[in-house]
Amino acid sequence: MPEPIDLRRRHLLAGTATAIAAVSLSGLPWRVQAQEAMPLPDYVKWKTPEALIVHSANTLETHRDAIGTSVITASNRLFVRNNLPAPDASILADREGWTVAFQGVKQPRSLTLAELRSLGVTTVASVLQCSGNGRAFFPHGASGTPWTVGAAGCVFWSGVPLKTVVEALGGVAEGQSFITATGGETLPASLDPKTLIVERSVPLRALDQALLAWEMNGEPLSVAHGGPLRLVIPGYFGVNNIKYVKQLAFTAEQTDANIQKSGYRIRPVGEKGAPDQPSMWEMSVKSWISQPLEQMKAGRVLIQGVAFGGAKAVKSVEVSLDGGQSWRPAPFVGPDLGPYAWRPFVLAVELKPGNYSLASRATDVDGNVQPRERVDNERGYGHTGWEDHAMKVAVV
Amino acid sequence: MPEPIDLRRRHLLAGTATAIAAVSLSGLPWRVQAQEAMPLPDYVKWKTPEALIVHSANTLETHRDAIGTSVITASNRLFVRNNLPAPDASILADREGWTVAFQGVKQPRSLTLAELRSLGVTTVASVLQCSGNGRAFFPHGASGTPWTVGAAGCVFWSGVPLKTVVEALGGVAEGQSFITATGGETLPASLDPKTLIVERSVPLRALDQALLAWEMNGEPLSVAHGGPLRLVIPGYFGVNNIKYVKQLAFTAEQTDANIQKSGYRIRPVGEKGAPDQPSMWEMSVKSWISQPLEQMKAGRVLIQGVAFGGAKAVKSVEVSLDGGQSWRPAPFVGPDLGPYAWRPFVLAVELKPGNYSLASRATDVDGNVQPRERVDNERGYGHTGWEDHAMKVAVV
Repeated sequence: MPEPIDLRRRHLLAGTATAIAAVSLSGLPWRVQAQEAMPLPDYVKWKTPEALIVHSANTLETHRDAIGTSVITASNRLFVRNNLPAPDASILADREGWTVAFQGVKQPRSLTLAELRSLGVTTVASVLQCSGNGRAFFPHGASGTPWTVGAAGCVFWSGVPLKTVVEALGGVAEGQSFITATGGETLPASLDPKTLIVERSVPLRALDQALLAWEMNGEPLSVAHGGPLRLVIPGYFGVNNIKYVKQLAFTAEQTDANIQKSGYRIRPVGEKGAPDQPSMWEMSVKSWISQPLEQMKAGRVLIQGVAFGGAKAVKSVEVSLDGGQSWRPAPFVGPDLGPYAWRPFVLAVELKPGNYSLASRATDVDGNVQPRERVDNERGYGHTGWEDHAMKVAVV
Repeated sequence: MPEPIDLRRRHLLAGTATAIAAVSLSGLPWRVQAQEAMPLPDYVKWKTPEALIVHSANTLETHRDAIGTSVITASNRLFVRNNLPAPDASILADREGWTVAFQGVKQPRSLTLAELRSLGVTTVASVLQCSGNGRAFFPHGASGTPWTVGAAGCVFWSGVPLKTVVEALGGVAEGQSFITATGGETLPASLDPKTLIVERSVPLRALDQALLAWEMNGEPLSVAHGGPLRLVIPGYFGVNNIKYVKQLAFTAEQTDANIQKSGYRIRPVGEKGAPDQPSMWEMSVKSWISQPLEQMKAGRVLIQGVAFGGAKAVKSVEVSLDGGQSWRPAPFVGPDLGPYAWRPFVLAVELKPGNYSLASRATDVDGNVQPRERVDNERGYGHTGWEDHAMKVAVV
């Protein structure tokens, strides 16, 4: 069943064939990178090169205009961010035998993926977003990958609810406040493991929505995205979604691994990370425009983008053509995949020649509105300010 | 937010660790074909070979156990059925310039894909299913590809609602009763085009949900699935979803192309196709079990499958372990993507050693129940009978 059509479309176009001939093109929507691009690393050779910016072997960003309106981001186009080099593909040779050690439950033990599979299955659509998405917009030159908007995507995850596993293990042991998960990457023997290990703690409330996922977008999980098994916490920043998860513990305290203790902490520019600073856990409401991004001809244009609420569902999104002086509501396109998914939006407008500043601003179900300004912070985390995400577009 | 958990799971598993150790494995869910398989044809080399059965260069079927629980079928795993060889990939060289001739509207004209894009966009999840899906179960040896269940998948389509295009062209001309679309395949010059041309007519009521799609599952549409532009009629059998659509006409009569006049007609075994027989248009309610399919160990098993209503939404599905003597409701997994999508279902059961006949039976929102028996017909079309789709499984 098609989405309701904005009546303005009809008014603009009903009438003579000439009216339609004048309709402008909004540019090639699937841009091919003109400049020399770094080749895809071997472990993601199956991805679509023209959809991705290769920042490094461990950091690949989706082009701003490479996201369609299908709600779900194709796996071929999804960004990649690994804190350590991805394990060898041989890690997938025996998916069913992959073992996770559960601790901090009343009956601690290890379970294989095959055993987890028999406990139950759920499917959740959720936005996966790197904490540093938008870092490129911070003027102080925050260290780290200079993501603009493409360290984010929305995918389907299938796996067993963590709550189901915990119930099978007798429940969470007394006195635990965090879920602490450990990745299965191989660490160099010469260093203190705490400096490198990918081990993160999230508050126990995340048990409500966490799952152990073996499938993404209908396919067995790839190494690039954490296969054979990944802890997925819908609504939380990417770093908390531990790949190749090998240990899952309920703990009284947060882990003292560097990635938790001092890493992924929001603090003023120039300050060092410390455990008393906010950790990158729940995501906040955010949106951006994905098209048009370039100069275009006057006429009818569909302004497209994505909006999500983060840990809460998104309620609505508005678009501005004048850098935030005025706003108009933009309709969502396609089915609602649940509170943790993003929603594509499309606003049809008639643009005369001139300069436009295209911005979008989303609101979540609790009424939280995406702010105008970024909150400057040392590592350039959690950027949701709509002003930096606006696009200046010339219409000729 | 995880799906509600069947309480039985907890009862089965809460308790000692030993109870969990006894949990049975349901076999490798992503089976790799053991026997020598035909290689993937070049135009679908990007697909996942172990998920597909290659019947011929134009017919590839998804393995019964290669569908996950993500609702959407990964493009890599989606079946392929072409009535004529797929065009060369060069057909995609200028996607935006692809042109469709619209006729039988008040202002007939041609529109490029770029122009169609500017009119509007919608996203619909729908089941794509070949008319002959299930043909292998007909005992009379119906001619055609012997599909079992894998000539079906559920995908996201993005494109412009056909209704929007028609309104921009002044509306449907008086006296038209059908939407007649023509594919852009090259035909051999030596034959009467009507014998081979892929041109289908569907009733005008399909205008409510039809779209012209340029994107599938978040990616520009591939040649294998009809790119650059495909007519998609959610709820209708695959053959009506014209690939590389180059002409779309509103007509008073159905086309006299063979594929419409005598092809894809339901008639008794032994009879020839004729225009007065029912055409393969709207799909009916159907479901099947995708796992388990093979002998397994006694213990806890998750019985999985997919259910859809066809032209109407599916309401519920039941599973039988005893070949239909008794039924129990099976919960759906994951988000509801709308009336034309399928819904994965999962039922957790405890199986003792013995022989089981696993069947599923879906009901649509109008109360239509999937029948027990097939309706025999010459070409083996439209099989929805649950009995033939049941799986005999030994538990040891």
